[in-house]
Amino acid sequence: MTEFDLIRRHFTRATPSAALGVGDDAALLQVGSGMELAVSTDMLVSGTHFFPDADPFLLGHKALAVNISDMAAMGAQPRWATLALALPEADEAWLEKFSAGFFALAQQHGVELIGGDTTRGPLNLCVTIMGEVPQGKALRRDGAQAGDDIWVSGALGNAALALAHLQGRVQLAAEDFAACAAALHQPAPRVALGLALRGVAHSAIDVSDGLLADLGHILESSNVGAEIYFDALPAPDALRAFAPASLDGEAARYSRAGGATLFQHCLLSGGDDYELCFTAAVARRAEMEKISAQVHLPLTRIGSIVAGSDCVVRAADGSSINIGESGYDHFR
Amino acid sequence: MTEFDLIRRHFTRATPSAALGVGDDAALLQVGSGMELAVSTDMLVSGTHFFPDADPFLLGHKALAVNISDMAAMGAQPRWATLALALPEADEAWLEKFSAGFFALAQQHGVELIGGDTTRGPLNLCVTIMGEVPQGKALRRDGAQAGDDIWVSGALGNAALALAHLQGRVQLAAEDFAACAAALHQPAPRVALGLALRGVAHSAIDVSDGLLADLGHILESSNVGAEIYFDALPAPDALRAFAPASLDGEAARYSRAGGATLFQHCLLSGGDDYELCFTAAVARRAEMEKISAQVHLPLTRIGSIVAGSDCVVRAADGSSINIGESGYDHFR
Repeated sequence: MTEFDLIRRHFTRATPSAALGVGDDAALLQVGSGMELAVSTDMLVSGTHFFPDADPFLLGHKALAVNISDMAAMGAQPRWATLALALPEADEAWLEKFSAGFFALAQQHGVELIGGDTTRGPLNLCVTIMGEVPQGKALRRDGAQAGDDIWVSGALGNAALALAHLQGRVQLAAEDFAACAAALHQPAPRVALGLALRGVAHSAIDVSDGLLADLGHILESSNVGAEIYFDALPAPDALRAFAPASLDGEAARYSRAGGATLFQHCLLSGGDDYELCFTAAVARRAEMEKISAQVHLPLTRIGSIVAGSDCVVRAADGSSINIGESGYDHFR
Repeated sequence: MTEFDLIRRHFTRATPSAALGVGDDAALLQVGSGMELAVSTDMLVSGTHFFPDADPFLLGHKALAVNISDMAAMGAQPRWATLALALPEADEAWLEKFSAGFFALAQQHGVELIGGDTTRGPLNLCVTIMGEVPQGKALRRDGAQAGDDIWVSGALGNAALALAHLQGRVQLAAEDFAACAAALHQPAPRVALGLALRGVAHSAIDVSDGLLADLGHILESSNVGAEIYFDALPAPDALRAFAPASLDGEAARYSRAGGATLFQHCLLSGGDDYELCFTAAVARRAEMEKISAQVHLPLTRIGSIVAGSDCVVRAADGSSINIGESGYDHFR
């Protein structure tokens, strides 16, 4: 089994929408007239982003999902992807499952694998995704305006809670773990929502590093601040069990020394949920209800964009919650 | 220094030809009207493709060069690139040199870095390159025709000879090593040649895995065979010193057990030279001389495409040289 046989067997599928697919020095694509090409790349590393013994089917799903999520966050229709992977050895069974997970999600979103690279090395997965968005219609980070509502799709904190369980920091009941593990292992990129938000949202981002960190990118790019209503954050049921009984300003406050409560951490700083966080004018609230129904996904209004540059999280009594950590940083 | 600071400091440059560059969920590009987008990705892994202590400036050059070379082999004008890198630690000095090497070559070819990812992990560099080629004009692997001349640019075997020296398999004089090390460490992608071959060559590939392996891809894609004239192969001076005094059929023959002579290995199976191998009609010979002068690069006619599927290497006396190894395979 040579490198080329490996590629052929596991990663060569029909690419009807490419002028030329896998198997030449480069693939050839035709971007639609009036369309911009959205391009994003993400690298997943064993031991950093996933456990070395991670299920290869789920890994194949996730490597593509985190990239498709970037297309969703731009309001782009994902179209093509390349996959480069370094493998410690040519493990056929692993590759078969990995490619099955990858292509299952690819097919679901009409994404074609048009090129890649296979090499020997510590397990590393690098996907580059390409999508189309009508010229000028992309959902960018720099369009948030003071007065905008801040919205988030789905629930926040599932992935962080599942990770806490896997790391032995909490013990979840089997059914609670199952409920939140899907977000960690098989995130569903919110493509339909991203497409529906074209021309509606002022800005958008996907929540990969944690709500505050990712919303922070919108605030910085747009030169605005934000107020977040902590009690409005869409916590999943499994996480609500960890909510302090009474979350007044005092109880919610935490010091750097003590660290955030797990509840706060999962909602505000937990990454990997791949929900969309976006902002839109107040006048769009009714439209959001329609979009929510259309894409079968709860949309929750969690705060407002304000002038300035601060991001304040408010408890029910109006007091501000002191935020220590703000998201995952690979080099901090 | 956070992950985002790192990216900003070392990898954010102006991207005037992108609608949106680094810093959002995705970059936005406008592909020219009537153009196809050529896309290719290559992953370089420490310990597999380069020594862990490799000079970061040269590594930055090479990570981009091998990708630009794929654009050259397609006859595409390289335009944009993404860079994903996994680093064991945030080493500022290393990043500064790496990005300097990367951008020096990028600038030379007008390539803009429009996105990427930085993460912690064993050193791994993944570049995805995008270029433009007029619709239908790409140099593909599947266009070789029986009767075509086979051509190669520059010299073959420099990189393999330099590697043999670094691995202690041969001892080169300092000036000889310097002469061939440039090919290994700072390959010059043949973009101008690729552009000049549009509409002239029937097929093309870049020599990254070794002449026979890469030409083999053309033969397989085009359903043809080839005859290579061993004595015509453009061996650099430093390599000629290792040529057998008299290369008759018997002397040139080698067994699997004995292995190829170093001379044969470097010319036929040595990878990493990033020259172009291409085929063109016999009627194009005069034009090749003009193109060679125009791009300041020797072009050498090394054989012919024939009917069938065999690739035969002929010694001066017409006898065939038995080829054992045919190129580098990461999993063999």
